[in-house]
Amino acid sequence: MELELGLKGGGFLLADVTPEQVYIPEELNEDHLQLKKMTRNFVEKEIGPKIEALEEQEDGLIRGFMAQAGELGLLGLEIPEDLGGMSMDKFSTVVVGEEVPRGSSFAVAFAAHTGIGTLPIVYFGTPEQKAKYLPGLASGEKIAAYCLTEPGSGSDALGAKSTAVLNAEGTHYILNGTKQFITNAGFADIFLVYAKVDGKLTNFIVERTMPGVSFGPEEKKMGIKGSSTRQVILEDVAVPVENVVGELGRGHVVAFNILNVGRFKLAAAAIGSAQLALEVTLKYAGERKQFGVPLSSFGAIQTKFAEIATQTYLAESVVYRTAGLMEEACKDLDVTGDCRKEAGKAIEEYAIECSLNKVLASEVLDLAVDEGVQIHGGYGFIAEYPIERMYRDSRINRLFEGTNEINRLLVPGTLLKRAMSGELPLLAAAKNVSKDLMSAGLGSEEEGLAALLDMTQKAKKLCLMAAGIAAQNLGMELKDNQYVLLGMAEMILQVYAMESGVLRALKVQDMDVTDDHKLFVEKAATLGAYSAMNIIEQHAKEVICAAEQGDSLSTVLAGMRKLLRRPNVDMIGLRQEIAKLVVEKGKYPIR
Amino acid sequence: MELELGLKGGGFLLADVTPEQVYIPEELNEDHLQLKKMTRNFVEKEIGPKIEALEEQEDGLIRGFMAQAGELGLLGLEIPEDLGGMSMDKFSTVVVGEEVPRGSSFAVAFAAHTGIGTLPIVYFGTPEQKAKYLPGLASGEKIAAYCLTEPGSGSDALGAKSTAVLNAEGTHYILNGTKQFITNAGFADIFLVYAKVDGKLTNFIVERTMPGVSFGPEEKKMGIKGSSTRQVILEDVAVPVENVVGELGRGHVVAFNILNVGRFKLAAAAIGSAQLALEVTLKYAGERKQFGVPLSSFGAIQTKFAEIATQTYLAESVVYRTAGLMEEACKDLDVTGDCRKEAGKAIEEYAIECSLNKVLASEVLDLAVDEGVQIHGGYGFIAEYPIERMYRDSRINRLFEGTNEINRLLVPGTLLKRAMSGELPLLAAAKNVSKDLMSAGLGSEEEGLAALLDMTQKAKKLCLMAAGIAAQNLGMELKDNQYVLLGMAEMILQVYAMESGVLRALKVQDMDVTDDHKLFVEKAATLGAYSAMNIIEQHAKEVICAAEQGDSLSTVLAGMRKLLRRPNVDMIGLRQEIAKLVVEKGKYPIR
Ligand SMILES: Cc1cc2nc3c(=O)[nH]c(=O)nc-3n(C[C@H](O)[C@H](O)[C@H](O)COP(=O)(O)OP(=O)(O)OC[C@H]3O[C@@H](n4cnc5c(N)ncnc54)[C@H](O)[C@@H]3O)c2cc1C
Ligand SMILES: Cc1cc2nc3c(=O)[nH]c(=O)nc-3n(C[C@H](O)[C@H](O)[C@H](O)COP(=O)(O)OP(=O)(O)OC[C@H]3O[C@@H](n4cnc5c(N)ncnc54)[C@H](O)[C@@H]3O)c2cc1C
Repeated sequence: MELELGLKGGGFLLADVTPEQVYIPEELNEDHLQLKKMTRNFVEKEIGPKIEALEEQEDGLIRGFMAQAGELGLLGLEIPEDLGGMSMDKFSTVVVGEEVPRGSSFAVAFAAHTGIGTLPIVYFGTPEQKAKYLPGLASGEKIAAYCLTEPGSGSDALGAKSTAVLNAEGTHYILNGTKQFITNAGFADIFLVYAKVDGKLTNFIVERTMPGVSFGPEEKKMGIKGSSTRQVILEDVAVPVENVVGELGRGHVVAFNILNVGRFKLAAAAIGSAQLALEVTLKYAGERKQFGVPLSSFGAIQTKFAEIATQTYLAESVVYRTAGLMEEACKDLDVTGDCRKEAGKAIEEYAIECSLNKVLASEVLDLAVDEGVQIHGGYGFIAEYPIERMYRDSRINRLFEGTNEINRLLVPGTLLKRAMSGELPLLAAAKNVSKDLMSAGLGSEEEGLAALLDMTQKAKKLCLMAAGIAAQNLGMELKDNQYVLLGMAEMILQVYAMESGVLRALKVQDMDVTDDHKLFVEKAATLGAYSAMNIIEQHAKEVICAAEQGDSLSTVLAGMRKLLRRPNVDMIGLRQEIAKLVVEKGKYPIR
Repeated sequence: MELELGLKGGGFLLADVTPEQVYIPEELNEDHLQLKKMTRNFVEKEIGPKIEALEEQEDGLIRGFMAQAGELGLLGLEIPEDLGGMSMDKFSTVVVGEEVPRGSSFAVAFAAHTGIGTLPIVYFGTPEQKAKYLPGLASGEKIAAYCLTEPGSGSDALGAKSTAVLNAEGTHYILNGTKQFITNAGFADIFLVYAKVDGKLTNFIVERTMPGVSFGPEEKKMGIKGSSTRQVILEDVAVPVENVVGELGRGHVVAFNILNVGRFKLAAAAIGSAQLALEVTLKYAGERKQFGVPLSSFGAIQTKFAEIATQTYLAESVVYRTAGLMEEACKDLDVTGDCRKEAGKAIEEYAIECSLNKVLASEVLDLAVDEGVQIHGGYGFIAEYPIERMYRDSRINRLFEGTNEINRLLVPGTLLKRAMSGELPLLAAAKNVSKDLMSAGLGSEEEGLAALLDMTQKAKKLCLMAAGIAAQNLGMELKDNQYVLLGMAEMILQVYAMESGVLRALKVQDMDVTDDHKLFVEKAATLGAYSAMNIIEQHAKEVICAAEQGDSLSTVLAGMRKLLRRPNVDMIGLRQEIAKLVVEKGKYPIR
């Protein structure tokens, strides 16, 4: 695939993005679709019947599934072919990611292994490390875990207390410390451990069999009970110097970049889970009758289905768009050799998009399972119904791979940093908006999807305007004012979501898909964009009222209202149309 | 207490309500405060240490706690004194309701017993039934359960299939059927069972020991695991004719009215739970440090505390206001004798307010526990931390005592019914709004809380306007258009909430409370009102755009905008001030 997206990370906020610049799920090729189908088949046939045993952490079960997944090539999508992998693109990881949640907790073990567990070696390992570890990780013979969190440091990853001290001989680092909440700890063979060398975070490959490695008991969790979560305790563990991953003292580069990829992948799993929750709930609502009719014939239920489908559409559009960016950033990396330097730069580029992605998808998933429970009525509270487990399982996604607060804050934080360094001409763009607002012509004669694109452009201007005012009036205080930063983050999140939905809908109109497909994307893009505008409006007002006063406040608010002007639309009517398609198809209607 | 509220049920929407017409928690008397303290003391001392055993449904544990509660008088608050009860007012049930959730699942058993289990006999029982059953229910010697739901009928309670057939001798009804999800079924002695006599719902007192009564296994639930939930199976159970509660064939009067009271009480428990979740989370956020500072010093965390406290304030204001109404409606009932007829009428009056109450409080609770988990970070997902259980436990509140959808739909449904029957001059009021809008003067020079009251009045007008348009343009279709009805319900919900918060804040300004107390209620009322206005704005627009077209749409939207005009306010600044008070006090700051 040759994408020429030509946008820097965060750059969408300053540009008029065209449909050609976004990748959409409708562009998946035959190989992707085959892979998706094969993954679903494997998960439903092999894991589906064993979900209860999985929940009980039946001995050896997950490892068995992993080995099967390894045989199918699913563990090696991003591992070079000559090291036992498949050398596939990012879209492949997305389609697989969407399907594994049908195996409930298996998805968590899978993600920890193939994502944050394996990728540090793929992207930051030495050729020797790759040769030694990747074939086993690809086949599932070896399982990996990622050990960053400590009891005292979660969000504050750099606050880790674990230490690594070079021994007198210079052959080994001696590691000490406790790692908290480590996924796969119960059975993993290889641990990507972060510890400090002279106060600076460094990443090490630690093997289970090394003396001094021990484990806490299994955590009793709200959900994803089938996954293993334990402390990893390191007491004078001697790790060979050649096991340092990435550069000495620059473990944060590995840690944070791998989390970027992790966030990107988490989002894929989240939209897959949301689709599954929708499907399960649609089935229930079609079968259960009250007042003599199926639940799905009630407007109160239909409106929920319409919302879930619409938000899933937005999140899915965002995930594939972000996949396009990540693919573009990573496709020229030669991961067979040493690519540490380039990998860091490549993955970092779209950090903002990865964070937006993660937040959006995990929150859409929460909507889907929460309304899923609600639509099940009292039965949603009963363990016999899968939605009950899905509700509990889903809750973790807003917490790990960086909490959603941390990911939200990263967005304006990174943008401001790039603005300061001159990488992104944010302030100039903000000034331009003021000028635009002075000149009269903001009206638009567009209709349909083109009008939505126009709305998106204005919403971007509003983001820039609000950010400009906040930067100007709060000055250095801004970077510590999380209230305002979160308002900005929310606006940017909504802009990214609505734009992704609209661009996809535009692109789809020219493609060879069914009429229903075209109808759905158009309606969902419209409803989604208008919903986003409502949120943007609130946060714009909040940020502006917090950062501006007196007469200038009135002027600015008048400008804001100009940018918010949009044609009237019947949102209830849109929901009715969307619900009709969703209920008819009995599933998320376009996949 | 002598309240002269003088408002019919739903009437708040048509009137200028004054602070004198609402009851507020600051007016609780010494007896209430003593009762509240005593209840907390009992629950924390006796039940607190046993919560884990309770979760395991340790044999006899709940019954023991119930007996203790009985000794303290807590089971007989609404039972007449000469039948072993305390003859207390509705405010007493609220303060007790607020405290019992500190005993986790005990609260559910307690509510089912004292509320929907006992009250059918209190309000609809014959003097003989009262004499026979109430003393035991007051002491805790006998435990009650309420059996309405069936496998095939939940929301559709009238669709029940259980039957009761008079025997040839005319002495007994023979009951057959299966009741689903019955709280306390595992150990209750007395079951208030609904079954149909000649197709008409009738309520019966069934005793555990009657031949033919059996039980399903315990349901495996997401939360409130300490409470017992089972099927109650009736096979040819012979129930004496004198065990009919209320009127033969009019069991729906008992069922629905008792649910009204149940909803009112559920809300009290929900706001108590929300305060507890806030408290637990504040404690955690004060102790846990990241980046060298306590979590509670991060704006991202503070803003959550501000929102929870504000929403809790609104819900609490609504609960006490509704308690005032219920007290007014019920205080002249002589429950020592036969009061069936009057009780039905009295309780029914404020059905709308009870539903609003239930929806609002249960959703605020969900906010509190969801953000509670989020603020705990990964630890919120771990069973060792009480917030994890609270999150699961809370989810039931949006499902039982009528799902929140059913309760929402009841609001416009009941209003329209009362409008049609001439009980509430809704349509005349809607017409007046149109006239008002024609005349210029809608501007207001008010400031502070008075301005908020003015905003509330306009919001009511907007509700009436939207309802009027919907009624006029959709005609008979309206009552089946749940999309539009839900929009109306949401507007009314927000109006009731914001008005309750504002009236309380006004009333408090003249009372002898601390400056911080006055400050908090003022800020919370303001933030709450502005948040409500945002929601009202969206739904007004949606309803109007669904019900109106073309030129008249523009006219109506212009009118809408007039009604929505409000002074600018710095919502972020408000959150900062509120958070400061909340974090300083380490708990919901005014109780
Ligand atoms: C089931 C499970 C599996 C996990 N698997 C792994 C794994 O495999 N490997 C691994 O390394 N870790 C893993 N984790 C850890 C997870 O990544 C952390 O829990 C997460 O990063 C949050 O850290 P914390 O729990 O310490 O919360 P904290 O960092 O204490 O955060 C608590 C709250 O404070 C907020 N907060 C923190 N700092 C700030 C700030 N500066 N500004 C504003 N708000 C802030 C957070 O958003 C959150 O709401 C797992 C956790 C769980 C529960
Ligand atoms: C733990 C627990 C304890 C309980 N305790 C008791 C008890 O002690 N006694 C008792 O009698 N019952 C009890 N219940 C039952 C409870 O009241 C019902 O579960 C509840 O009324 C919902 O009914 P349902 O589960 O059949 O859902 P359904 O009625 O099947 O509803 C499913 C979904 O459809 C929606 N829906 C249904 N009808 C309509 C409509 N007309 N329009 C729009 N939407 C609609 C609902 O809002 C819901 O979202 C308990 C339930 C649980 C889970």
